[in-house]
Amino acid sequence: MEVRTILVEPKSEENIGAVARVIKNFGFSDLYLLNPPEIGKKAISVASHAYDVLSACRIVNSIEEAIENSALVAGTTSKPGISAHKHLRMPFFSPRELKRKIEGKRGILSLLVGREDRGLLNEELMRCDIVVRIPTSPEYPVMNLSHAVAVVLYELSEVETASGGQLLARVEDKERLFAHLRTFLDEIGYREHKKEKTMLMLRRILGRAELTAREVQTLRGILRKAEWKIGKGKP
Amino acid sequence: MEVRTILVEPKSEENIGAVARVIKNFGFSDLYLLNPPEIGKKAISVASHAYDVLSACRIVNSIEEAIENSALVAGTTSKPGISAHKHLRMPFFSPRELKRKIEGKRGILSLLVGREDRGLLNEELMRCDIVVRIPTSPEYPVMNLSHAVAVVLYELSEVETASGGQLLARVEDKERLFAHLRTFLDEIGYREHKKEKTMLMLRRILGRAELTAREVQTLRGILRKAEWKIGKGKP
Repeated sequence: MEVRTILVEPKSEENIGAVARVIKNFGFSDLYLLNPPEIGKKAISVASHAYDVLSACRIVNSIEEAIENSALVAGTTSKPGISAHKHLRMPFFSPRELKRKIEGKRGILSLLVGREDRGLLNEELMRCDIVVRIPTSPEYPVMNLSHAVAVVLYELSEVETASGGQLLARVEDKERLFAHLRTFLDEIGYREHKKEKTMLMLRRILGRAELTAREVQTLRGILRKAEWKIGKGKP
Repeated sequence: MEVRTILVEPKSEENIGAVARVIKNFGFSDLYLLNPPEIGKKAISVASHAYDVLSACRIVNSIEEAIENSALVAGTTSKPGISAHKHLRMPFFSPRELKRKIEGKRGILSLLVGREDRGLLNEELMRCDIVVRIPTSPEYPVMNLSHAVAVVLYELSEVETASGGQLLARVEDKERLFAHLRTFLDEIGYREHKKEKTMLMLRRILGRAELTAREVQTLRGILRKAEWKIGKGKP
C-alpha cells in the first residue's frame, strides 16, 4: 500500500523535518500536515536531503481533508487501551501486526500521528480504522514523535530487506572446506581419537557463522598456504 | 542479551538526549559515550523523562574501554558492503536478523553507532563481530543517528509485544454471533436465496476484523435490541 504520513497539529518544526527525512529513508514520499506551525530553516536543516519530501508536503485544515481517498486509516497512540469495554484504543496493533494486515493489499494507508504533548484526540482516534501502538516500556512509553514515525515506517517499508546473506556459501563449498580441514588435521598429526569430535565442533562454529562463498575460498586459501608451509601441499 | 548502546564521537547534544530517550522507551538503560561533546541543557531537554539514563551514561576514551566485557559487538553502517571480496561490511545483517541471532543468548551486546557525518571508521568496524544495516532506500540511505538507534532498539526490545489481540473472541462466541445473525436475517424477512451468500460475506468481514470477545457481546446486544424493536425478541 501507499503510505501517507499525516502529522496532526505538530508543534515542532524540527519534528516535521525529521519526519520528512525518515519518510524518504524508508522509500516513501507523502507527507500531510494538519495545522502545522510555520515551516522555516530549522525544518529544512533537519530534513537534510529530504527537502523534496518537505517541500512537496500538503497542508490541510481538517482530518477529513487529510484522510481523503484513504483505504485504511491507522491512528498511533502511546497509551494502550486498558479495558476491552472501551473500544477507542482496543484492540490495538503493533507496527508489525499492521504490516501483516496490509500485506498484499492496495490503496492508500493513512498514518495519523498526533501532537507532541497530547497525541491524537479521542474524536480523531474515532476516525481511525485501526489503532497502532509501538510496544514500549511501561517505565517510559511515550516516544518522540519523529522516532515513533521512524519505527512504524521501518516496519511498513518495502525496501529490500535482503542482506549480504544472499551470498552465503553453498553446501557443496562448505563440504569441500570441511574435507580440507579433515585432511589438514591428519597432516598436522592431530590425535585420531579426538578428530571426529573436533570436526563436529568446527562444523558447528563455521555453521553458526553462516559463511559466504568468498569466506570459504579465503579459508581454503589459508589451509593451502599452511599445508605448503608444512611441506604437504603444492604452492 | 543486555544491550549497551555506544555512541562513537557524537557531535550533537540533541542526538545524545534523543538516544537516551529511545533507550528508556525500549526498556534498556546502558549508554556509553566515546569522546562526546559537553552535555548540557539541550541534551537534558531532549532526553525528557530519560534523564536517569543520560545522567548514568558512561564516558569513555577508547573503543576498547567502550566494548569491555561485551559478548558480541555489532557495528552499524548505512553503507552496505558492495563486494563479497571486501570483508569490512560484508555480510551485513538487518536489525531483525541481528535479533534472531541473539535470541536465547546471554551476555552483553554492544551496539556501536558512529559519528553523524562519517559513521564508524574502518578501524572501528574491524573491531565488530557483526555489521548491522537498516534496510533503507537507495535514494536516501543515511538516517539520523538517533532515529537509526530507535529502529535497532525497537527490534532488539524485549518489551512485551502482545497487543490487544490477547482478547480475541473464541470460535464458540463467534459461532453464536453467526447463528444470531442468521436468525436475525430470517426475522427481518431477508430473501431466502440470498441468505447463504450474505452469511458467508458476514463471516468473511467479521473474520477479517478479528473480533474481541467484548465486541462479539456488544454486536449481539445490538441484535437483541433490534429484535426487540421489531417485536421478535425479549427485552
